[in-house]
Amino acid sequence: MPPKKLLAELRKKSNKTFLISAHIHLEGDALGSELALAGLLKALGKKAIIINEDKAPDEYLFLPGIGSIRHDISGLDYDAAILVDCSDVSRIGKMHKALRKDRPLINIDHHISNTGFGDINWIQPDASCACEMVYYLFKALGVAIKKQDAVCIYTGILSDTGSFKYKTTSRHTHLIAADLLKHGIDVYDINRRIYESMSVATVRALGKIIGTLEVSSDGKIAWLLIKNSLIRKNPALAEETDNIIHFARAIAGVEVALLFKETKRNGDVRINLRSTGSADVNELAQVFGGGGHRMASGATVRGALGDVVKKVVDEAVKRVS
Amino acid sequence: MPPKKLLAELRKKSNKTFLISAHIHLEGDALGSELALAGLLKALGKKAIIINEDKAPDEYLFLPGIGSIRHDISGLDYDAAILVDCSDVSRIGKMHKALRKDRPLINIDHHISNTGFGDINWIQPDASCACEMVYYLFKALGVAIKKQDAVCIYTGILSDTGSFKYKTTSRHTHLIAADLLKHGIDVYDINRRIYESMSVATVRALGKIIGTLEVSSDGKIAWLLIKNSLIRKNPALAEETDNIIHFARAIAGVEVALLFKETKRNGDVRINLRSTGSADVNELAQVFGGGGHRMASGATVRGALGDVVKKVVDEAVKRVS
Repeated sequence: MPPKKLLAELRKKSNKTFLISAHIHLEGDALGSELALAGLLKALGKKAIIINEDKAPDEYLFLPGIGSIRHDISGLDYDAAILVDCSDVSRIGKMHKALRKDRPLINIDHHISNTGFGDINWIQPDASCACEMVYYLFKALGVAIKKQDAVCIYTGILSDTGSFKYKTTSRHTHLIAADLLKHGIDVYDINRRIYESMSVATVRALGKIIGTLEVSSDGKIAWLLIKNSLIRKNPALAEETDNIIHFARAIAGVEVALLFKETKRNGDVRINLRSTGSADVNELAQVFGGGGHRMASGATVRGALGDVVKKVVDEAVKRVS
Repeated sequence: MPPKKLLAELRKKSNKTFLISAHIHLEGDALGSELALAGLLKALGKKAIIINEDKAPDEYLFLPGIGSIRHDISGLDYDAAILVDCSDVSRIGKMHKALRKDRPLINIDHHISNTGFGDINWIQPDASCACEMVYYLFKALGVAIKKQDAVCIYTGILSDTGSFKYKTTSRHTHLIAADLLKHGIDVYDINRRIYESMSVATVRALGKIIGTLEVSSDGKIAWLLIKNSLIRKNPALAEETDNIIHFARAIAGVEVALLFKETKRNGDVRINLRSTGSADVNELAQVFGGGGHRMASGATVRGALGDVVKKVVDEAVKRVS
């Protein structure tokens, strides 16, 4: 539950304008928690400015208020800053330049790896997502949830629990979903916008990506490749992860699933890592300068695709097999 | 909520042995509701015999009690029969031979197309699945839900709501899920067993199936083919549907997704139909002698694959485009 110090900071009269940011590689929980938090602050009579380095992926453009998110930080001023869904302040990328040392920094996050970088830290690793935490803030502050807030919170839950299936899904997650459904949100529509709005080209590309499937000899590591030629034809693939890596994860016996995206030819390879249970892919990603959760993480490695695959798969095999 | 007549019939002292059956082409809701109902009846001190024409698909073999399901009906006797998740008595296939005219037939179903075939009918089309109805039976009869019942009910919900995403998902569905999670069920494990236990061969086949994707000129109808040669190599594909048809459904603008399975070369083609919203695929399936729900249905048509595809796609285009 939110610490009293945090509630006091949000209510504080002298805090008139809040700056909100979240991590790069935006997804549903980052965007949902930013927007719901802005809704909460506005209901408290505050001004809320959301700044993100990245643009929101197309499938999240339906989120109410998303058009108000700023990417330009020139001339910004604020009374307190809140970072949501960030394990470290560096996760907001270039937006860190907007932060002022003489203003309080609030850290609201559910990542176990959170560095406690804030002046006020609320870290709740048993929350399924940052949106679940923002929901508790509404309740703790006695602010009524509007339909638009419910859409944002539900989106974050969906996105971070893999539609109520990851281990982080608790009965509280379902109770929150039940409460959000009271506000008349259209769960089918939200699901369809997030998970079922692919282009024909993306689906065809997916068929090709599945064709790259390889599995380690003991069947515990499975990986897929997205070559640069495919990304150049379908730039959206660079941001598509769960719909694709599913086909490495969803194989019986696989413990670690990897997706290698050759974002630049002979340059950066973006790696998405997923655990199906006991393997810790946060640790594995950290070997390559990345990080995330125990079950889902990411890293970016420079090098030719084949070399990067070999290096990462070898490390995965060493740790898991 | 269950009618009083039904509750009385289940409690009735002279009803010592209940026969339970569900539809052919077994899936999570049919199996889950049969098994949870058997658990309920046993808790009431009754004997429950489950009979199904089909064997349970591999991914459901983890369901507690599944080993007790019978396929041989010789010498069976019972006091009352209950069909779950069946829109009509014909849906139980050959098992109808076990039904006796001089014994009451109870019909528990959530299909709007239910024909009301029972002596006692409880049809609740706003329930997300038959398992949700069995949950209400536990509550109405004051029977404590055991962990094994919770696993079965949760599985049915998951299976019939597409993991809480179809329009049938209500706040009640989430409240039930929250209650089931109290019983210590492992949602991640259940999800993984149902949705993430594919073989490497199946995933590779999936890549090929996605390669067959075709879309009507207006983008509203999308279809995929599973040729007989692929089914012969991977017989499990004949029973795999949602993981595959997803890639026709999940295209922006698509209103009807079709999956054609050439179950016999130049013979039967099994068709799965999915609507993404306003189209009624129950009506469409009925044109070809099949049926189901407005959003999900099936049919089997004799003929060469190419002819069947043309006939069904033409009809779909005529109705939707």
